Amino acid sequence: MKGAYSLSAADAARAIRDGELTSEELVKSCLARIAEFEPAVQAWQHLDEELALEQARACDKRRYEGKATGPLNGVPVGIKDIIDTHDYPTEYGSPIHAGRRTIGDSHAVARLREAGAVILGKTVTTEFAVYAPGKTTNPHDASRTPGGSSSGSAAAVASLMVPAALGTQTNGSCIRPASFCGVVGYKPSFGMVSRSGMLTQSPPLDQPGVFTRSVADAALMADAVIGYDVEDGYMLPEAKPGLAAAAVSEPPLEPRVAFMKTPAWDQAEEGTRAAFAELTEFLGDRVEEVPLDEVYDEVFEWHRRVMEADLAKNFARDFQRAPEQISPQLTEMIERGQKVLAVDYNLGIERMSLFEHGLDPVFENFDAIITPATPGEAPVGLDATGSPVFCTLWTFTGLPAITLPLMSGEAGMPLGVQLVGKKGDDARLLRTATWLTKRIDDAAE
Amino acid sequence: MKGAYSLSAADAARAIRDGELTSEELVKSCLARIAEFEPAVQAWQHLDEELALEQARACDKRRYEGKATGPLNGVPVGIKDIIDTHDYPTEYGSPIHAGRRTIGDSHAVARLREAGAVILGKTVTTEFAVYAPGKTTNPHDASRTPGGSSSGSAAAVASLMVPAALGTQTNGSCIRPASFCGVVGYKPSFGMVSRSGMLTQSPPLDQPGVFTRSVADAALMADAVIGYDVEDGYMLPEAKPGLAAAAVSEPPLEPRVAFMKTPAWDQAEEGTRAAFAELTEFLGDRVEEVPLDEVYDEVFEWHRRVMEADLAKNFARDFQRAPEQISPQLTEMIERGQKVLAVDYNLGIERMSLFEHGLDPVFENFDAIITPATPGEAPVGLDATGSPVFCTLWTFTGLPAITLPLMSGEAGMPLGVQLVGKKGDDARLLRTATWLTKRIDDAAE
Repeated sequence: MKGAYSLSAADAARAIRDGELTSEELVKSCLARIAEFEPAVQAWQHLDEELALEQARACDKRRYEGKATGPLNGVPVGIKDIIDTHDYPTEYGSPIHAGRRTIGDSHAVARLREAGAVILGKTVTTEFAVYAPGKTTNPHDASRTPGGSSSGSAAAVASLMVPAALGTQTNGSCIRPASFCGVVGYKPSFGMVSRSGMLTQSPPLDQPGVFTRSVADAALMADAVIGYDVEDGYMLPEAKPGLAAAAVSEPPLEPRVAFMKTPAWDQAEEGTRAAFAELTEFLGDRVEEVPLDEVYDEVFEWHRRVMEADLAKNFARDFQRAPEQISPQLTEMIERGQKVLAVDYNLGIERMSLFEHGLDPVFENFDAIITPATPGEAPVGLDATGSPVFCTLWTFTGLPAITLPLMSGEAGMPLGVQLVGKKGDDARLLRTATWLTKRIDDAAE
Repeated sequence: MKGAYSLSAADAARAIRDGELTSEELVKSCLARIAEFEPAVQAWQHLDEELALEQARACDKRRYEGKATGPLNGVPVGIKDIIDTHDYPTEYGSPIHAGRRTIGDSHAVARLREAGAVILGKTVTTEFAVYAPGKTTNPHDASRTPGGSSSGSAAAVASLMVPAALGTQTNGSCIRPASFCGVVGYKPSFGMVSRSGMLTQSPPLDQPGVFTRSVADAALMADAVIGYDVEDGYMLPEAKPGLAAAAVSEPPLEPRVAFMKTPAWDQAEEGTRAAFAELTEFLGDRVEEVPLDEVYDEVFEWHRRVMEADLAKNFARDFQRAPEQISPQLTEMIERGQKVLAVDYNLGIERMSLFEHGLDPVFENFDAIITPATPGEAPVGLDATGSPVFCTLWTFTGLPAITLPLMSGEAGMPLGVQLVGKKGDDARLLRTATWLTKRIDDAAE
């Protein structure tokens, strides 16, 4: 029998709740797993075994004492190292911020603690969550990139070091590493998860996301971190969607999905094209290819303007103070961003909503859009983190997106299937993701 | 006895409700007044007597039939000609949009209709609600500007043509003309009144406001137009403040106000300085001069960047299509706006909230800030609309502001006293405005 480390978050939480397992046992199991695989994978930026075990014992104590416990009580999670934690440093993947500590937790981490989670440690991010890679390797092949920027979160979950982790996406930083590492990556609708206490890259684009090994776990994690925060001016107070129940619920009708090649299709590798041809054939009348107006070809340019102008503004102090400690890639982006005009920036902001609502008719006819998560398998080499090109449109429009590790490429590496939903309709997206997973699992049996 | 036209909105509404007056009689009285004074004042851009009377008769009919009627049932109001109305054209004060009609009402006008108001007609605005004047003159002296950009709304209320009118402020377009024309001008907190269906100058700055001849009427009008609109992305769903009751309520303690010279003080005319010296002396221990950190000197520059960059974006189509029909002043602003960098624009946006919260301590100790509304009386000449310099900071920070016609200058023209409140605390601001008015009225008796 495998160790407790291999349990899903939901199963681990249930086992702890039922007294079959203690959080301390689970955390010890995860730490042992990490001790074994961390030398190769390098997923963790900060990990203090004693700090983790202390939290675990506190969770066990709550339960023994009959106190109320959250849905994740005793379950360890990893946190991307751009998300503030009061106990661990948060270094943004940059030597400029080495040893940076904060007094408080980010909103999302506070919510995870409220749900009972053990904050196991901080996972490796690329430099400032942009492109320059951290130390992490792909757990399936150490010569390949794990993807970025949430590299450590994806790799830690993929290598069974932890059942779930938190990351972020400003372009493709959640979906892409999840696809490359073969885990579920889920970025809820823009505005559902607060960004307070996270590194600000670009406020109109920054979107937290979760990494797990099942759709049900993704829903469980999202339920914990979703919640209104008046400090995040981009949020609206709304009822929480209750995704854990929705994700495993039976669809009222068998779902139909829209296969969209998107303006990124010409960058899809041969293996990806073949895999999607097979997938759409398999889905038969449950899928229909839907074209996208050519105005969407402009999304990369608009996204770039908004993001780079915001990088230039938000990293200005670091860029002034320590330009030599900023990578050439990021320097180039900042310098381009400094020149973006306000008019163009605001036209970009306007297009976010136009592009979003241009897709509304699709969701009247389909439960989700189905599209690649990445151009192909994780590329060989650790000097870059792969292309976010299949994620840009969904980040730009703020639609909820989930990648499912349902396919593999020519080299046998994982290849994600990305499902995209209507903004705010995350419940339907996750329900559809469960349906798709089951359909493919059933066929494989 | 004066005609019904001279009634306040509250008194008119009450008289109609009690059957002492019909809306038709009131509207006829206003139309007669307009017939007499419009040749000199030129407050109206569109006015259709029959259309106005039809609405009035419909209001009377509702009452006769015992149907529910709103708090403004039968009361005529003027609407600035940048705010959409389904029955009248909305021409933005520009020949480019001559004859422009819309199918629907703006959110604020729809709310006024819901409250029972008769939309009497559209009032003159400057070109695109910026600086180039319309045809309106100052009712107190036709050789002087009425102020802008809500010129017609202020002048119509001042000359007793209509008890109340709607306008907007992106810099000083509500407070300034109200001060120059000697009426109450009130701009609720940013985010309380929807801008849907109004000309977009600058989304982070555009703020609707009301013109009346009393604080109580301003509260009544504001109560009608305040309300959440999901279409205006800058609003938060919140309970309506109920200003009509609050405005006339007794303060729990006698209010104290902070006299602030603001960075505009060096532009205050001699008469204004003298009037404020007298006013602060009169208020004794109820007022204290509070200095403002010199960082606030930058507000004009930040406001200009944000506003001009937004003008460049939002008027781009008109500027491209018909540059010869755009005034030299506006052309210059658009051309400057085209060059504003995204980084600077977003630093400006960030300062809106920093400058706002920098004032929080003032409102812990004082009920309102008291400050001039304009540098002085309405300047002679109709080729400009005067300086908005005493309004810029409060527009930039989105604080609620009201000007009260309590003083006069050396030429005997009206001079407003501006009170500014904490964002969202409009009720306390209006209560304080009523207190100040009463204190000065009592002293004058």
